[in-house]
Amino acid sequence: MTRPSTRSRPIGVFDSGVGGLTVLKELRSRLPNQDFLYFSDTARVPYGRKPKEMVCGFARQIVSFLLRMQVGGIVIACNTASAAALPELATSTPVPVWGVIDPGVEAARRQTRTGRVGVIGTLGTVSSGVYQRKLEALGLWVWAQACPLFVHVVEEGLAGSSDAQALAQHYLSARPDIDTLILGCTHYPMLGPVIQRVVGPSISLVSSAVVTAEVVNAAWEPPAAGAGRVTHYVTGDPLAYRHTAHFIDGVEGDIVPLDVTRLDSLP
Amino acid sequence: MTRPSTRSRPIGVFDSGVGGLTVLKELRSRLPNQDFLYFSDTARVPYGRKPKEMVCGFARQIVSFLLRMQVGGIVIACNTASAAALPELATSTPVPVWGVIDPGVEAARRQTRTGRVGVIGTLGTVSSGVYQRKLEALGLWVWAQACPLFVHVVEEGLAGSSDAQALAQHYLSARPDIDTLILGCTHYPMLGPVIQRVVGPSISLVSSAVVTAEVVNAAWEPPAAGAGRVTHYVTGDPLAYRHTAHFIDGVEGDIVPLDVTRLDSLP
Repeated sequence: MTRPSTRSRPIGVFDSGVGGLTVLKELRSRLPNQDFLYFSDTARVPYGRKPKEMVCGFARQIVSFLLRMQVGGIVIACNTASAAALPELATSTPVPVWGVIDPGVEAARRQTRTGRVGVIGTLGTVSSGVYQRKLEALGLWVWAQACPLFVHVVEEGLAGSSDAQALAQHYLSARPDIDTLILGCTHYPMLGPVIQRVVGPSISLVSSAVVTAEVVNAAWEPPAAGAGRVTHYVTGDPLAYRHTAHFIDGVEGDIVPLDVTRLDSLP
Repeated sequence: MTRPSTRSRPIGVFDSGVGGLTVLKELRSRLPNQDFLYFSDTARVPYGRKPKEMVCGFARQIVSFLLRMQVGGIVIACNTASAAALPELATSTPVPVWGVIDPGVEAARRQTRTGRVGVIGTLGTVSSGVYQRKLEALGLWVWAQACPLFVHVVEEGLAGSSDAQALAQHYLSARPDIDTLILGCTHYPMLGPVIQRVVGPSISLVSSAVVTAEVVNAAWEPPAAGAGRVTHYVTGDPLAYRHTAHFIDGVEGDIVPLDVTRLDSLP
């Protein structure tokens, strides 16, 4: 029996919920023939304020599942899970694993003129200190701010609302003088317009989704031809997933529900 | 075979997530020997902005499940589900079904001196207009405001944070002159202190949780003796449920995970 070549295998993309769909969208626009498996852990969303050990356990389970599904590479399209679990998973997984943090750090380094960079994310991401350590190791000055309610603003379809504006002002009003702001959560590209309005045009925003897709695209040899199919594996309710996903990029492809309590023995 | 008498049967309490635990807590303090089944639909939480028909479908499924578990009465400990589904469920269910809306309306009628009442809730509850209709039918003047992010403030454990304060100011700053404010969502009692601080001491708050428990207590004949056991049925991940429930009243009793895609054929 021959193993399928990496080239013909799908890429697995996972997130706690629908935020990773912003990454999937950017990946698909660069790799149109590529098949993807998108894993959305909506039975356990949000990850942002859950303990690191809990998030690591979830990520390990999901990576194992995706490997059993014969993926050729895995994108952790979730900053919280990347911060908690990427170092462990990158060494223990037999296919390439990409997170969303290194691409954002590298893009900020390229974009900043003043060397003063901000990063916003979930409490888990910000309190892990991973962005701060990586940016400071490059000689940059860093301001970090947790925005724990931004995920919910997006998932409730409120990205353009006055609620979003009020929260953006609350979270960003104490910012110091920076010229670059990393959107360190895959939901936040949906809040780009409101964040840009609050911080003004002199600050450049870095979207994890775009820069991560660029990194994967540069490393991955895509199939010469293919249908570019997406299958969504969802631990919560499929109907509720479709409803929430609609606020990001919607769902194209099949939705396969998974019993989260039996994940270790699936498929 | 004899059917167990109503008196020895558990009361079923259900909510989209953990908000109903505020109602359960008030029920247990009044009915200490009573057994309860608490159903938490965390695979499909939040209900607040989902379409009415979707919420009705969820509520119907949960009521059927609870009836198969031989409950003697059902408390819909969720304003969104009460607004969407109580009229239908109250007539089609062979045991008493209580919602959280009528008790809150009745308490507001008793408390108001000026006849000017406010109500806050999810978008589903507020846009259903059910509070407004019931309060206006009693001759009261009503101001209603949807606060879609308050549920997430509570579930993220941020009820005492500056985020909660900023959102409460955002949602409540345009309030007219009222003397009573109904907390029309079972999560909101956790935000009582911050809401009271924002609106000032001249406005009385009405908690759905307290007034609903009083209504059920008045109607229910409790067992003379009993263990007062609680079993939690959870459609999402049990670990994640325990984590989120910790921000309300915690979990006492067993947690039984249910596969949401097979709910109609369980137990």
